[in-house]
Amino acid sequence: MAKDRSTRRPKAETPRGFRDYFGAEVTERKAMLDRIAEVYHLYGFDPLETSAVETVEALGKFLPDVDRPNEGVFAWEEDNDWLALRYDLTAPLARVAAQYRNDLPSPYRRYAMGPVWRNEKPGPGRFRQFYQCDADTVGAPSVAADAEICAMLSDTLESVGIPRGDYIVRVNNRKVLNGVMEAAGVLDPADPTRWEAERGIVLRAIDKIDRLGDTGVRALLGAGRKDESGDFTKGAGLSDDQAEVVMGFMAAKRDSGAATVGRLRELIGGSAIGLEGVQELETIADLLAAQGYGPDRVDIDPSVVRGLGYYTGPVFEAELTFEILDEKGRKRQFGSVSGGGRYDDLVKRFTGQAVPATGVSIGVDRLLAALREKGRMGAETRGPVIVTVMDRDRMADYQAMVGELRAAGIRAEVYLGNPKNFGNQLKYADKRNSPVAIIQGGDEAAKGIVQIKDLVLGAKIASEASLEEWKSQPAQFEAPRGDLVAQVRRLLNEG
Amino acid sequence: MAKDRSTRRPKAETPRGFRDYFGAEVTERKAMLDRIAEVYHLYGFDPLETSAVETVEALGKFLPDVDRPNEGVFAWEEDNDWLALRYDLTAPLARVAAQYRNDLPSPYRRYAMGPVWRNEKPGPGRFRQFYQCDADTVGAPSVAADAEICAMLSDTLESVGIPRGDYIVRVNNRKVLNGVMEAAGVLDPADPTRWEAERGIVLRAIDKIDRLGDTGVRALLGAGRKDESGDFTKGAGLSDDQAEVVMGFMAAKRDSGAATVGRLRELIGGSAIGLEGVQELETIADLLAAQGYGPDRVDIDPSVVRGLGYYTGPVFEAELTFEILDEKGRKRQFGSVSGGGRYDDLVKRFTGQAVPATGVSIGVDRLLAALREKGRMGAETRGPVIVTVMDRDRMADYQAMVGELRAAGIRAEVYLGNPKNFGNQLKYADKRNSPVAIIQGGDEAAKGIVQIKDLVLGAKIASEASLEEWKSQPAQFEAPRGDLVAQVRRLLNEG
Repeated sequence: MAKDRSTRRPKAETPRGFRDYFGAEVTERKAMLDRIAEVYHLYGFDPLETSAVETVEALGKFLPDVDRPNEGVFAWEEDNDWLALRYDLTAPLARVAAQYRNDLPSPYRRYAMGPVWRNEKPGPGRFRQFYQCDADTVGAPSVAADAEICAMLSDTLESVGIPRGDYIVRVNNRKVLNGVMEAAGVLDPADPTRWEAERGIVLRAIDKIDRLGDTGVRALLGAGRKDESGDFTKGAGLSDDQAEVVMGFMAAKRDSGAATVGRLRELIGGSAIGLEGVQELETIADLLAAQGYGPDRVDIDPSVVRGLGYYTGPVFEAELTFEILDEKGRKRQFGSVSGGGRYDDLVKRFTGQAVPATGVSIGVDRLLAALREKGRMGAETRGPVIVTVMDRDRMADYQAMVGELRAAGIRAEVYLGNPKNFGNQLKYADKRNSPVAIIQGGDEAAKGIVQIKDLVLGAKIASEASLEEWKSQPAQFEAPRGDLVAQVRRLLNEG
Repeated sequence: MAKDRSTRRPKAETPRGFRDYFGAEVTERKAMLDRIAEVYHLYGFDPLETSAVETVEALGKFLPDVDRPNEGVFAWEEDNDWLALRYDLTAPLARVAAQYRNDLPSPYRRYAMGPVWRNEKPGPGRFRQFYQCDADTVGAPSVAADAEICAMLSDTLESVGIPRGDYIVRVNNRKVLNGVMEAAGVLDPADPTRWEAERGIVLRAIDKIDRLGDTGVRALLGAGRKDESGDFTKGAGLSDDQAEVVMGFMAAKRDSGAATVGRLRELIGGSAIGLEGVQELETIADLLAAQGYGPDRVDIDPSVVRGLGYYTGPVFEAELTFEILDEKGRKRQFGSVSGGGRYDDLVKRFTGQAVPATGVSIGVDRLLAALREKGRMGAETRGPVIVTVMDRDRMADYQAMVGELRAAGIRAEVYLGNPKNFGNQLKYADKRNSPVAIIQGGDEAAKGIVQIKDLVLGAKIASEASLEEWKSQPAQFEAPRGDLVAQVRRLLNEG
């Protein structure tokens, strides 16, 4: 009977691919998001909070399918409608921009922060629920909006604690890449569908430059490439001259934005779309320079290609440039923590009208990891002051003590477990990382005093102090009951 | 063709029963939750954030069923597991307390705030996603933990802006009610399953006292009650003497906690469980009195019955006592914004071991509504300063202006829509609720000045001012470019 029962007990488990966040993990993320929201607010952005649930129809991209309706998203059927958890914050924004188009100001600047869900195979460090933090401007055709987002991203990184010099916001333009494709003879403005497969291979090759190096990319631009395992990847079939144009594009970065733009202008030849892209980059560089955002903070960099397929104009990416040790102990740059760009077609899905939009998304968990790496998380990990219980009939006295401490703004609590074993009370204080414990038995109460135990010093003494030090600086001392708050405050200020 | 396409467009709609929150709706809730978290933190509670998704097995209560797996929750099948969105914050806490029982401090004080989801029929003001904000102590058997939660609830309400006198935390005890049932002869301690149906009817009758009054409740305690429509509800079948005991319980409230406790002690007769409950209430009243929480803030009140089925000991409820006008224009008290109590069996589901727990949940939306009713929401509804664009070639100059304003901590933005129609720029400023607009055409630039438009004063003049006032206090004036920040700051401080 007892066994039967135990087999029917539910398992106490976080679902696979999800996780729980405790204490400082919650407050540190909150502190970071609060600082980001302050910057977004200062730039005139308004908060928007949509619900976690959208219709699959509005989310788009992941259409329900009889066999696998859940591909990529968590979805379920509800009154003949498919509902799903949002997979990012951009799709809900597109829905909102269409739904409230007559009521929202235009341009509409909004920021959003919150969890998103992906129905993907979980892996180490990859979770199926994670935070995003986005800012977008909908309805602003001018690249001044893109420049503003880049400046804001720079301000945001500094505001959360990434010092200038430890990050760079890199800017490129999808149109320039198209211009280069045209110059290389794999894009025909009169027939944009021609050479689509070749351009796909070129894009994927460019995206692999960090991993494959020049030689590998060149092989993929030409006949193809055989990897270490012997597998062959078919190339784009470009001639050497054509490949040279593409390689030149990736090497077009110069010391100043103006010089880089000049080099790009040469590379795109007579391409109209390329020229438009170059001019947009030039405007962005000028606007940023006029506001004092030099290439040490925001830089034109043709090697930014990530996510290009999604965007229609300027694209940007924030990289942290300081080095960390990877899991194999090798030095490497921390890398990207944010990306974005202009996407002019998302709202059109709903209304049929193109609405220009540009925005940025910050990878909350990666930025948090970077701040922890830099020791820039100031969140309090110190636990509360613990008032121990020596005599359970005098609970009111102990509650009065914590009441006084709290009134003075000091985090404090009475031990509320079974007080019988005093050792357990101190173990609890240790587990809570408490800086101070207060002790008052019947004798102390009669004398009008309390024992104050400095747990920080106590731990230090236990691990390293000499007897002399211990004598000169005892970790526990008595104080008049009336001095409780003052003495605790003194210890906390020292700690 | 065009028509075909438009019919295939997705609908831009918030799913039924969900809603979007804009601007101040987001920041006001956040400000309130931040203040609540501060109080919880001060009391030694640590934040916990579990994921939105739980296994249906861990959630319990709503078991998957082949026909209606989604009853009450949003659920879907995933790799042979049923997953669901959490419907409250207590079920995930029970799961966490079981899962991490060897690592968490004991007692474990945690707070949690975030959305929960209910798969219910949406109605006016009833949404399928809403916020909860909970604080619970797991592993503290002493009613000192319950008293602490009541004191904290009182502090929390005052901290968010409900003044003392406008709320009352009312405390009762499930055990006292059982004692009364025993005294009334509908509970046999030797056979607790006997008279279960009768006790159910008594509980439901008590719960209806506000609506049915004494006569209606008395009828339900006895033979039964016929309502206005002629429908008959079967009663508990209590004799007049039995009913008298129950009615006496509901009228047991006295002017002081001690007097109420004394009256309850009489009513429960020789019931052991009742006596236990009365002693617990007495301890709670004593602890709170010793900390200065008198009956003007926390009061013993036997009429608190809400949710009693769920709890095993003390129960509490915070009510706002100020009057508002209901939808029919009648005065009524604002009512309950928070409730909680002791539930000693939730963790047992997982581990087989009873773990004492007590906690409180604040109805975030109702408390927000109350604060708005009292005019206590201080969130900024003022929009950013708008720098208008008179000459799109001088975008860098305009960006420099907002850069200076932001550096001075003033929320500001350049108009980024199409600048051709100046009227649209002012309409935009109006829609954003902007206090100030900055104007600088070529002439002003050449003279080194800017025009500063006081939009708050402008709106006032437009609606009420005389010509004299207009002349003496113009809503638009020019200032040297170098004085931009100082002049804007002056206007904002006046506004």
